[in-house]
Amino acid sequence: MLNPEEWFTEIVEDSGSAFSLRIKSKVHEEQTPYQSIEVYDTDGFGQLMVIDGFTMLSSRDNFLYHEMLAHPVLFTHQAPRHVAIIGGGDCGTLREVLKHQEVEVAVQIDIDERVTRVAEQFFPELTESNQDPRASLLFEDGIAWIRNVENASLDVIIIDSTDPVGPAEGLFTADFYRDCLAALAPGGLLVQQSESPLYHMEIIRGMYADLTSAGFADRRTLFFPQAIYPSGWWSATMAAKDSSLDDWRREAAEARGFATKYYNAAMHQAALAAPQFFLDAMAEAPPPV
Amino acid sequence: MLNPEEWFTEIVEDSGSAFSLRIKSKVHEEQTPYQSIEVYDTDGFGQLMVIDGFTMLSSRDNFLYHEMLAHPVLFTHQAPRHVAIIGGGDCGTLREVLKHQEVEVAVQIDIDERVTRVAEQFFPELTESNQDPRASLLFEDGIAWIRNVENASLDVIIIDSTDPVGPAEGLFTADFYRDCLAALAPGGLLVQQSESPLYHMEIIRGMYADLTSAGFADRRTLFFPQAIYPSGWWSATMAAKDSSLDDWRREAAEARGFATKYYNAAMHQAALAAPQFFLDAMAEAPPPV
Repeated sequence: MLNPEEWFTEIVEDSGSAFSLRIKSKVHEEQTPYQSIEVYDTDGFGQLMVIDGFTMLSSRDNFLYHEMLAHPVLFTHQAPRHVAIIGGGDCGTLREVLKHQEVEVAVQIDIDERVTRVAEQFFPELTESNQDPRASLLFEDGIAWIRNVENASLDVIIIDSTDPVGPAEGLFTADFYRDCLAALAPGGLLVQQSESPLYHMEIIRGMYADLTSAGFADRRTLFFPQAIYPSGWWSATMAAKDSSLDDWRREAAEARGFATKYYNAAMHQAALAAPQFFLDAMAEAPPPV
Repeated sequence: MLNPEEWFTEIVEDSGSAFSLRIKSKVHEEQTPYQSIEVYDTDGFGQLMVIDGFTMLSSRDNFLYHEMLAHPVLFTHQAPRHVAIIGGGDCGTLREVLKHQEVEVAVQIDIDERVTRVAEQFFPELTESNQDPRASLLFEDGIAWIRNVENASLDVIIIDSTDPVGPAEGLFTADFYRDCLAALAPGGLLVQQSESPLYHMEIIRGMYADLTSAGFADRRTLFFPQAIYPSGWWSATMAAKDSSLDDWRREAAEARGFATKYYNAAMHQAALAAPQFFLDAMAEAPPPV
């Protein structure tokens, strides 16, 4: 029915579902030391980047994910000056972070330089801020970088990774979160992409448990749509070193002087609302405290 | 790649995308006077009903759609006693409506009785409230029914239809909305499924224009996830005969005495928040007033 010459398909084995995009051609393909990277020119979604067979981003809908990884956490921190992005090699999150004028330093640490080089070629709109003097791009292991960074030197850590299998597995562990906690200054916040609320509740529950066991004081999940990801519904989970995530800078979000396609102050508040099944699952068997 | 013996696939031509569910077997297939109905037993989504080749509902994720069609509009109306559901033959919306004790009469008008009979067989959890003495199921043309119903006799009209092509086309017109307006009592509200915010902005814009031209005083779109529908992101649009949709009965929603899986008061408020691109599109070329 779907000719593989004409369609790129990602199968989600556990849920017995699949999402496909009609392609005009494969415009890039390489095997890096870490993973395979493919880029397709699609009919309806612009360019599509695929890593190890999983859809990573499309021109059409990446704004959802990148805006929701960057703006809620930055408008929750009281004064985000030093930001680290672990992963995020396509630079789309970095671009959103740099829209915040109070950010003085934004370091992106992705293990695979090729993701950035491919993004520069096929998603130039995402890398347009890479020459910003506040930005630095490192190509090394994010886990080691966080472990070695000066204690209490970061205000916000954004973990913009692939799924918790393969290279990104170590980014979903209590050990890594403990290193993040040490790297965060007082008032510091972390946010991490946390998979589909419909398909991956156990991953989110595991993250809550690991974040708590690592010593984070508060945790909160953001919900948002993402057409090309499994189930079309995605999440990111925030954690606070020593503050409450209830308060965020709503007035600053309303007065933001930059363009967004999805994010606004009302959507920020909306993304914090949790579906009843999520509340029930967390209440029935709460993560350890 | 996806063997059609093993997968049901719906292709969305305009967006060049497709969604597939792995199937164990096709358990039902018929051609009614109005449409084709198929039911598949899937691997990960329970039973799947397909009408004219389009996914209608699955056991796993129908709660999203049915709860969001019923509860926000019923908790916005000040005293919803008389409710009509146009379409909704699977009875899932009816079940949610009947959870509201203040509802005295709920009439479901679907043109195709076979949808209800198939739902009774394969989705019995959705038809479990059909014997409620407050419920009546009519199998006739909803457009004619609304045209002929007593003026000002309904508090809430829920339009739970297929896409605006084929049998449901007449449910997306200013003429139909005019008949709905006449059928609504003072304070009356309407809600209609309004397709994907990512794929179908022009349909939503057209609805706003038609609702305004029909004389509705206010309109507001609800956004929610729906894995099996195109883009995984869906919407329903409410309209008010003579009131504002800003106010809703938050305390009643918080104190609701029935179970939900997605809906709660915070999700109600969240669903009313509009993405920035939606606000921009409506502001750039607002529907006629």
